[in-house]
Amino acid sequence: MPSISTKGLQMPASPIRKLVPFAEAAKKRGTQVIHLNIGQPDIATPDVALEAMRSLDRKVIEYSHSAGFESYRKGLAGYYAQHGIHISHEEIIVTNGGSEALLFGMMACFEPGDEIIIPEPYYANYNSFAIAAGAKVVPVRSSIQEGFALPPIGAFEALITPRTKGILICNPGNPTGYLYSRAELETLRTIVLKHDLYLFADEVYREFCYDGATHESAMTLPGLEQHVVLVDSVSKRYSMCGARVGAFITRNKELYNAVMKFAQARLSPPTFGQIASEAALRTPQRYFDEVITEYKQRRDILVEGLNTIPGVTCPKPKGAFYCVAELPIDDSDRFCQWLLESFEHEGHTVMMAPATGFYADPATGRKQVRLAYVLEQDQLKLAIACLRAALATYPGTTEAVAVAAKATS
Amino acid sequence: MPSISTKGLQMPASPIRKLVPFAEAAKKRGTQVIHLNIGQPDIATPDVALEAMRSLDRKVIEYSHSAGFESYRKGLAGYYAQHGIHISHEEIIVTNGGSEALLFGMMACFEPGDEIIIPEPYYANYNSFAIAAGAKVVPVRSSIQEGFALPPIGAFEALITPRTKGILICNPGNPTGYLYSRAELETLRTIVLKHDLYLFADEVYREFCYDGATHESAMTLPGLEQHVVLVDSVSKRYSMCGARVGAFITRNKELYNAVMKFAQARLSPPTFGQIASEAALRTPQRYFDEVITEYKQRRDILVEGLNTIPGVTCPKPKGAFYCVAELPIDDSDRFCQWLLESFEHEGHTVMMAPATGFYADPATGRKQVRLAYVLEQDQLKLAIACLRAALATYPGTTEAVAVAAKATS
Repeated sequence: MPSISTKGLQMPASPIRKLVPFAEAAKKRGTQVIHLNIGQPDIATPDVALEAMRSLDRKVIEYSHSAGFESYRKGLAGYYAQHGIHISHEEIIVTNGGSEALLFGMMACFEPGDEIIIPEPYYANYNSFAIAAGAKVVPVRSSIQEGFALPPIGAFEALITPRTKGILICNPGNPTGYLYSRAELETLRTIVLKHDLYLFADEVYREFCYDGATHESAMTLPGLEQHVVLVDSVSKRYSMCGARVGAFITRNKELYNAVMKFAQARLSPPTFGQIASEAALRTPQRYFDEVITEYKQRRDILVEGLNTIPGVTCPKPKGAFYCVAELPIDDSDRFCQWLLESFEHEGHTVMMAPATGFYADPATGRKQVRLAYVLEQDQLKLAIACLRAALATYPGTTEAVAVAAKATS
Repeated sequence: MPSISTKGLQMPASPIRKLVPFAEAAKKRGTQVIHLNIGQPDIATPDVALEAMRSLDRKVIEYSHSAGFESYRKGLAGYYAQHGIHISHEEIIVTNGGSEALLFGMMACFEPGDEIIIPEPYYANYNSFAIAAGAKVVPVRSSIQEGFALPPIGAFEALITPRTKGILICNPGNPTGYLYSRAELETLRTIVLKHDLYLFADEVYREFCYDGATHESAMTLPGLEQHVVLVDSVSKRYSMCGARVGAFITRNKELYNAVMKFAQARLSPPTFGQIASEAALRTPQRYFDEVITEYKQRRDILVEGLNTIPGVTCPKPKGAFYCVAELPIDDSDRFCQWLLESFEHEGHTVMMAPATGFYADPATGRKQVRLAYVLEQDQLKLAIACLRAALATYPGTTEAVAVAAKATS
């Protein structure tokens, strides 16, 4: 039997999806599983996008341009201009989700062995794209005590080696929900210019900012025209994760041309998804206002609820729809599996993503979980009640906390 | 400015698309360009697939399972069974077109530096996927004189090295249209077993066989359960290239699991495309009968027409919808560009793919072009008339042929 490649062996199994068989078993037993483990919102896709599908009048579903429909790219450029990001449609390559933008970008920028510094905890699949490209992720730790703020410039500089070739940020962040300030972006700008690095900015949660905070794009940093790669997607913006339409954006012509060759090899991004995405550009502002109000309320319920559970700490994030909480437990992988295998509270249990998958060294995330507030408020309240009860009975809960939890549950 | 990676530099620009700017200029001048350069059929997508889009009743366009909808995979398994290919839905991963199946398969099977033997001429993008995976394409020459039959076993064995890890075939073939016989597949089986290689079989043109010939799948070869990777796509079968729905199929569990990790990293294949593809499984046989009859007629017009032009040789292929013709010219890249830049015949010209991009050494394809018979019969007749006239006036036409062509044009 021929062997599997080193990359094939090294690729991590998805930390978000690896608990799925346990969830399926729980459902078969009749337990309702509250899914806070994955960023699949229950928010309706804008009707203008669905209507574009329902009124489809094409006879042949053809390939598009490898960079995506020109009309869609022009529309996208208009959307970015409204967000203060001034780019031309010729600086955009439409991709199969943000995932493909990351994969192609990493393959075009990084040699095998090149290092990418990523503030951790970070989106687990960055590891996968880096492995596919042969690059090495070098984490720079952000701490829950600091609310996951950008580490100071010195922490980055301590990690720079001759192989350092890029920095990757997710802003607002998955899994932390952290929103970088202008000052933090300026810090990144300084490092990137000083060491001539690529700056990958995954900004797929751009719309989701709360408490009056505004999103600052890496694309607006002056002097970084040759350095910045903007990764985008319609998945979260329009609650249209299944459309698989993203974008790779750079003003660096040479890099654009290199990524275009990867895009040409796979012929084109999906035509149906592009039709829906182009229509979605006409989504009324009212839709976003309502969605953002809803997410803010969900965040408040979830984060405030979590912080009332004895021993639980959860910073209140200003963006995206995730938070990372520290729990008074022995091991988040074990706890999340136990919730699905051995626990229920009034017929319910909670599925969460152990944070071990969001750190380069899983041990760092051993007491943390990521929760996505993508479900209705009543479900979130139920989830809090479940977690409170679970921490009171889980055998791995810190003893003092278990006693206190029992008293309040 | 940070540098582009070696892979980014090595990736070839698409040989099929690189003439596009010249075609655009020709159109601006008012010349009608007959597109025989790309496998984008004008055949209508089955209405059952389009109707699935028009009657879409989902409120949220969600991610699917990373391997694709279970219902679609089960449906696909039924489709394969009808074609004598017996696999389970758990041996299928739905991909972003056949392209992604090739990319993930190569990344999971081949180490950087591993060698893949591919009969040439071959689909140009195989080079791109191999470069992305770091693998090396080793061509084994099939000749136009032999109608592009599989080279003899000795030709393969002469190329085997300690780094040889796989063989890739396209059956029926792009660009040649060649359909492998059972005996040829048995030859491949012998080599694959003897040297413990992967056998990648790109069978996306399975339906398109002519003159009573039937397609034999590599999946039906006994004893190759651990070796065969089947690459498939709905693009050509249902004239739905833009759906971007393909499949990676293997009975090798370890390889399946490795590719699933790549699939999980990119979350899911496109939901809209899967809905259309699942509906397309109900396409009536009548559709295929009509399409195949149409393609056969087109092939006959094109191939017979080409062979009436002095100095032109074109074997009649038994499958797919391409042919490779040898022309009495100096250089196919120059000729194809000249057709777009400096020629017209009664207001028309022809766009073809120079075969240079389909050979590991471009020089081998210097006198050959690939033509896709994806247009209506009248357009094909017009294309023949254009080519006849072009060869009579093109400055790089072999002199004796130019004289003869002038006499018949």
